Amino acid sequence: MSMYLMNDRFVKNDEVSISIEDRGYYFGDGVYEVIRVYGGIMFTAEEHIGRMYESAEKIRMTLPYGPEEMLSKLTRLIEENAIREGHVYVQATRGSAPRVHQFPGEDITPVITAYTKSYPEVPVVPEPAKLKSVDDVRWLRCDIKSLNLLANVMAKQEAHEAGCLEALLHRDGTVTEGSSSNMFGVKDGVIYTHPVSNFILNGITRRVIMQCCEEIGQPVAEEPMSLEDVYSMDEFFMSSTTNGILPVSEIDGQKVGEGTPGPVTKRLMAAFEAKLPEPAPTR
Amino acid sequence: MSMYLMNDRFVKNDEVSISIEDRGYYFGDGVYEVIRVYGGIMFTAEEHIGRMYESAEKIRMTLPYGPEEMLSKLTRLIEENAIREGHVYVQATRGSAPRVHQFPGEDITPVITAYTKSYPEVPVVPEPAKLKSVDDVRWLRCDIKSLNLLANVMAKQEAHEAGCLEALLHRDGTVTEGSSSNMFGVKDGVIYTHPVSNFILNGITRRVIMQCCEEIGQPVAEEPMSLEDVYSMDEFFMSSTTNGILPVSEIDGQKVGEGTPGPVTKRLMAAFEAKLPEPAPTR
Repeated sequence: MSMYLMNDRFVKNDEVSISIEDRGYYFGDGVYEVIRVYGGIMFTAEEHIGRMYESAEKIRMTLPYGPEEMLSKLTRLIEENAIREGHVYVQATRGSAPRVHQFPGEDITPVITAYTKSYPEVPVVPEPAKLKSVDDVRWLRCDIKSLNLLANVMAKQEAHEAGCLEALLHRDGTVTEGSSSNMFGVKDGVIYTHPVSNFILNGITRRVIMQCCEEIGQPVAEEPMSLEDVYSMDEFFMSSTTNGILPVSEIDGQKVGEGTPGPVTKRLMAAFEAKLPEPAPTR
Repeated sequence: MSMYLMNDRFVKNDEVSISIEDRGYYFGDGVYEVIRVYGGIMFTAEEHIGRMYESAEKIRMTLPYGPEEMLSKLTRLIEENAIREGHVYVQATRGSAPRVHQFPGEDITPVITAYTKSYPEVPVVPEPAKLKSVDDVRWLRCDIKSLNLLANVMAKQEAHEAGCLEALLHRDGTVTEGSSSNMFGVKDGVIYTHPVSNFILNGITRRVIMQCCEEIGQPVAEEPMSLEDVYSMDEFFMSSTTNGILPVSEIDGQKVGEGTPGPVTKRLMAAFEAKLPEPAPTR
């Protein structure tokens, strides 16, 4: 039996239910975050929670409590569920009201829900990923981490059916990101990735990577790659909250470099791992 | 106490609840329809239900029963709730499962929900509408009537705050449609409207309008208007399930023609009204 956060209460999972009039259910009118837990400690929790409040602001939704309270509630949820390795998922919708598109007025209260997911204690190290290129048909506000994820769902499904872990999204041949990850190519020692704009979600792991690059003196060019560029990259990797940095071995059936993690990727992975939290004492 | 349809059961509204793991709530992974009820009879029910199954197919979701059964269930719901003037809302999500983007496998069953809304018995005739132009930032599959409606919500809200009923969406200056309506301009006796494509939802009321035009010999050009075009139209109107044909009096604060419904609009409204169902006998 695991616990959920529902607004400001902690409830058992069989007591959780959503109103049919929740605007999350009618419109996807809400935002979310996924925060990785390493050794019982949330990684970059402030950054994730900060982005959640930014996403909420971008859709003009005021959450009923602030980032500090959110942090303490999610911390408690992780403790309640005794999560060592795993993640916490948190979302907020605009609340419940009879269905009209426009905001239903002042008296609506956002609905916050969060749950945890536990990973195996000894983490499975994932294989280098295969990618499939998929048209990016998402809306033009990909900078908002919203619940409107149908395009992402369809892209991920298309990749999976091609035996790939992730979709490599591109708009008219310009690579943007993955369906739930950011994308990076390495050519002649320089890392290329799409600049921060409305076409990508500025991943928290992406931000940590940028910081690592600065610290280890790794050149980065925030320039979009074309779909043609990616096939001739020396190395390629993706980043996400759940997988951290994951090397890419194949794109559309074509091997990247030797098909094994290259030196730039490996060096960055080491720098990234050095930033992960020390495990909390076991309770 | 009004009744809801939940899959194949009719339940009281206080017994309705949604699983927190419903993919409609996580991803907006679902489709919907709104069907107008005139005098106890659904208008163009087969067309709406047909489009719902098409939308479902486009997102590769197989509903647990077919269009005929859907029609009979919605008919019963309207009877149970004794709806004379109003509408029925029906949606289907891919079902409930632990959160992963890709489809969660064969054993997932879509969740179908429907409710009715009653209008005043003597319908309020809405005033000619004012529109506000708003950037169309939606995804590139607007032909799917999906639950990913955050861009529509934000556009409608922007229009409302400007004292307008509806947003006039445009992509880089090319008018597409409204946030929950189709848009039509009249110039020199010809009706202009965006052609059917992935940039608009081919409204059922739009289809009835096209049929009316053919029947009354009204010329129609399915050509997109530019935002500059619309300000100099002789007449302008919008169409939707809930409002039928609604004349537009103002766009971005500029009067359309004389600001009152023009002859082409009025003639079309009469042709449209002639198609509405005869009221069912009161039970």
